[in-house]
Amino acid sequence: MSELTELAVRLRGFAQARDWEQFHAPKNLVMALAGEVGELVAEFQWLTPAEAENPDPDTMARVRAELGDVTGYLVRLADVLGVDLIAAAHVKLDESERRYPPELYRGSARKAPPLP
Amino acid sequence: MSELTELAVRLRGFAQARDWEQFHAPKNLVMALAGEVGELVAEFQWLTPAEAENPDPDTMARVRAELGDVTGYLVRLADVLGVDLIAAAHVKLDESERRYPPELYRGSARKAPPLP
Amino acid sequence: MSELTELAVRLRGFAQARDWEQFHAPKNLVMALAGEVGELVAEFQWLTPAEAENPDPDTMARVRAELGDVTGYLVRLADVLGVDLIAAAHVKLDESERRYPPELYRGSARKAPPLP
Amino acid sequence: MSELTELAVRLRGFAQARDWEQFHAPKNLVMALAGEVGELVAEFQWLTPAEAENPDPDTMARVRAELGDVTGYLVRLADVLGVDLIAAAHVKLDESERRYPPELYRGSARKAPPLP
Repeated sequence: MSELTELAVRLRGFAQARDWEQFHAPKNLVMALAGEVGELVAEFQWLTPAEAENPDPDTMARVRAELGDVTGYLVRLADVLGVDLIAAAHVKLDESERRYPPELYRGSARKAPPLP
Repeated sequence: MSELTELAVRLRGFAQARDWEQFHAPKNLVMALAGEVGELVAEFQWLTPAEAENPDPDTMARVRAELGDVTGYLVRLADVLGVDLIAAAHVKLDESERRYPPELYRGSARKAPPLP
Repeated sequence: MSELTELAVRLRGFAQARDWEQFHAPKNLVMALAGEVGELVAEFQWLTPAEAENPDPDTMARVRAELGDVTGYLVRLADVLGVDLIAAAHVKLDESERRYPPELYRGSARKAPPLP
Repeated sequence: MSELTELAVRLRGFAQARDWEQFHAPKNLVMALAGEVGELVAEFQWLTPAEAENPDPDTMARVRAELGDVTGYLVRLADVLGVDLIAAAHVKLDESERRYPPELYRGSARKAPPLP
């Protein structure tokens, strides 16, 4: 069993043991994910770019905790919806490789036109 | 190599091939993550709870794509910061198991007081 | 002076008095806005639709506080960027009125095609 | 009638004319707000701090449009919940003035302890 599946199974058991599956509806989980991403963003909001590259240990501990929360809700949401996150990410990356040929976009932050 | 590490390595190579590592600063990546989560939330905003439990195939395809984007930026951000997402999620889940004893929180959505 | 301008002026003075204008760069303020919206979303995540329509007094007090924070950062960001929020909202509403003719979209949550 | 009330009234009429009040439940509107803030964040994600201070005209037009969308959903949500956004923002600013005395926090981005 992959480490992501293992995490999904643990999260499912955590919800079942508390009869919380009733709360883990997709709309609720996507809101919880947005809330946790908001907390992650807030950790970085006043940092300079240099500070954000190399957060001090206290900030780093909070960032790690927020990344853990984000991962938990993302994996739980994907489990409820039956989506394979890794496969979904690779499909999007395949698409980005076609949209952004290295020779045309080297060092450029401009957005590609949508794929036909 | 785990499937998450494999994805992180592919994303790193994608950025290097385009000289995009300069854009992949933590502040920028956390903003990109927030942007993609916003797109995911938008897919669910007008759905009824029942529709969200069982999205039609077109919605589901867009949801899968957004989940792929969210996963990609989350994994890329964690790679840049040197954070192990799975370990971070388990640490937070350990904490939630202590904060929310099943016998006290069964079927309850109320928030626990913070851990001492 | 309109109530929004008055708020913008008060926020500007608040920042100046603390020499915080250096932190109020657009990227930082947009992150702060996203963080506060995340906190607002979190207030609603586990509520049923009925509870969310009519939050209990404690929830309502927290919601009001989060709406205050969101408004503050939105108005501060617009001030820094020189954008008139009310005018910008009316322009978008003009557009929505053209995109969504009442007779075609009555009671329908489907998305209109983008305006040509 | 203030310009914010005027906008709220126009938004209410827009929803009524399309029988969209059924969709404008608080959970849905807070999700729509999060989605629009995500689009606003995305406009800034790859900009350097200097570019973000002074966006080029095309970026600025998109930023203005996103700020208009964010304002619209924020005002609509507040209207549905019966919250006065300006009053709520001033209450939070009163609180921030007490938490962050200028002489203690001048030029400092550190977070104040919560008010007792």
